Amino acid sequence: MSPADGGATTLRALHHEPPGGRPLVLPGPWDAASARVFEEAGFPALATPSAGIAAALGHRDGHTPADEMFAAVARIVRAVSVPVTADLEDGYGLAPKELVDRALETGAVGLNLEDSDRSTRALRDPREQADRIAAVRAEAGQDLFVNARVDTYLHGGTVTVAAERARLYVAAGADCVYPITAPADDLPRLRAEGIEGPLNFLVRPGDPSFPELGRLGATRLTFGHGLLLQALKGVTRLAEEILRA
Amino acid sequence: MSPADGGATTLRALHHEPPGGRPLVLPGPWDAASARVFEEAGFPALATPSAGIAAALGHRDGHTPADEMFAAVARIVRAVSVPVTADLEDGYGLAPKELVDRALETGAVGLNLEDSDRSTRALRDPREQADRIAAVRAEAGQDLFVNARVDTYLHGGTVTVAAERARLYVAAGADCVYPITAPADDLPRLRAEGIEGPLNFLVRPGDPSFPELGRLGATRLTFGHGLLLQALKGVTRLAEEILRA
Repeated sequence: MSPADGGATTLRALHHEPPGGRPLVLPGPWDAASARVFEEAGFPALATPSAGIAAALGHRDGHTPADEMFAAVARIVRAVSVPVTADLEDGYGLAPKELVDRALETGAVGLNLEDSDRSTRALRDPREQADRIAAVRAEAGQDLFVNARVDTYLHGGTVTVAAERARLYVAAGADCVYPITAPADDLPRLRAEGIEGPLNFLVRPGDPSFPELGRLGATRLTFGHGLLLQALKGVTRLAEEILRA
Repeated sequence: MSPADGGATTLRALHHEPPGGRPLVLPGPWDAASARVFEEAGFPALATPSAGIAAALGHRDGHTPADEMFAAVARIVRAVSVPVTADLEDGYGLAPKELVDRALETGAVGLNLEDSDRSTRALRDPREQADRIAAVRAEAGQDLFVNARVDTYLHGGTVTVAAERARLYVAAGADCVYPITAPADDLPRLRAEGIEGPLNFLVRPGDPSFPELGRLGATRLTFGHGLLLQALKGVTRLAEEILRA
């Protein structure tokens, strides 16, 4: 489903369960074949993980050339009819107009945008990032669902600092905020600190059940490249079986 | 391992077990991540399946554009240090010199070449195909391991016709012949009809054990896109678990 078909509107509507309800679960395909499996299983939308696509292409996470990432996203979009939102990392240094144009060219109906700088690995100034989000929103109109990643936790930050960034990004026009690697226990405090609307939680092994994550405050659940890692464990078992055969 | 490092020589040496011995087992990676898994599991070489790569890229088997196939093979080669041989289908209409140049540019140390014509789906004249193999051999020297696919069985042909083609291709310089979808029961008869040297057998569910396939006459075992299909079954199970969670 492309932006022209109202895919972003469909994706946005899927995020409308209020906090405390059943979260939207978006699996992360790393190629066209896995995307088809997730679509056939019944997921209403997909969210590409940059680390998963990097691994499938043979790059270290954070080192996929922009052209290869856009091409990989486009292949996934072409393979399915459900809306696909794309992890476009820190935007690859592209100006907002070019980032939006290239995202739309892939057929994706949404994007993740990180507030870390890929080249320096440092957090960007929050107001500068809010301005980028506002510029992306202005270029995209409602044609892209903008998921603003908050990388505070990756840098040892606190709930308060993460929530402050998140509020800024929502005010700038983000459809969703994504405090990556926030522990589940922090979800109620993130909500108490004033994060309203869609909140993306990264599910990792050992986390509470999906309904419980919803009760804690998550509205959207993703897995990063966790599903690829699980799939590759299956490939390892298969390889070992063949070696023993 | 690239052709310049003697990768084709290494791959050729792996095929030197005589008929009746333990076959060489070559798994078929569909992307860089699966290639790394197979390398880490301990396989000494890998053989890309065109149908697996097509599925990962979202194409129907036999419909991957040549540029995309070469790029996908190159990504796999870059991801591992073991030799990689590539299924290059019918050669995409390329003249022998260009086919060899482009195969070598990917870093692959071998290729599969089919005797079906991709556009017409018909079998090529066997002498014309032998001439193509001889031309590829002349261009590549010993830098590519040439696996000549014999598509007779796909077209309802017999052991005798398959063996006749195989003998022609070996005489033209093929390092290995690959009567795809030959039933295991036909292996002794293919050998009796005068196929000497490396013989590639496509392993499918329900086939005899690998040692038994070796005793019957196979010297190299591959799986087509069978390993991808098994991996995708695992992804389906994972997707269903997540939907139920």
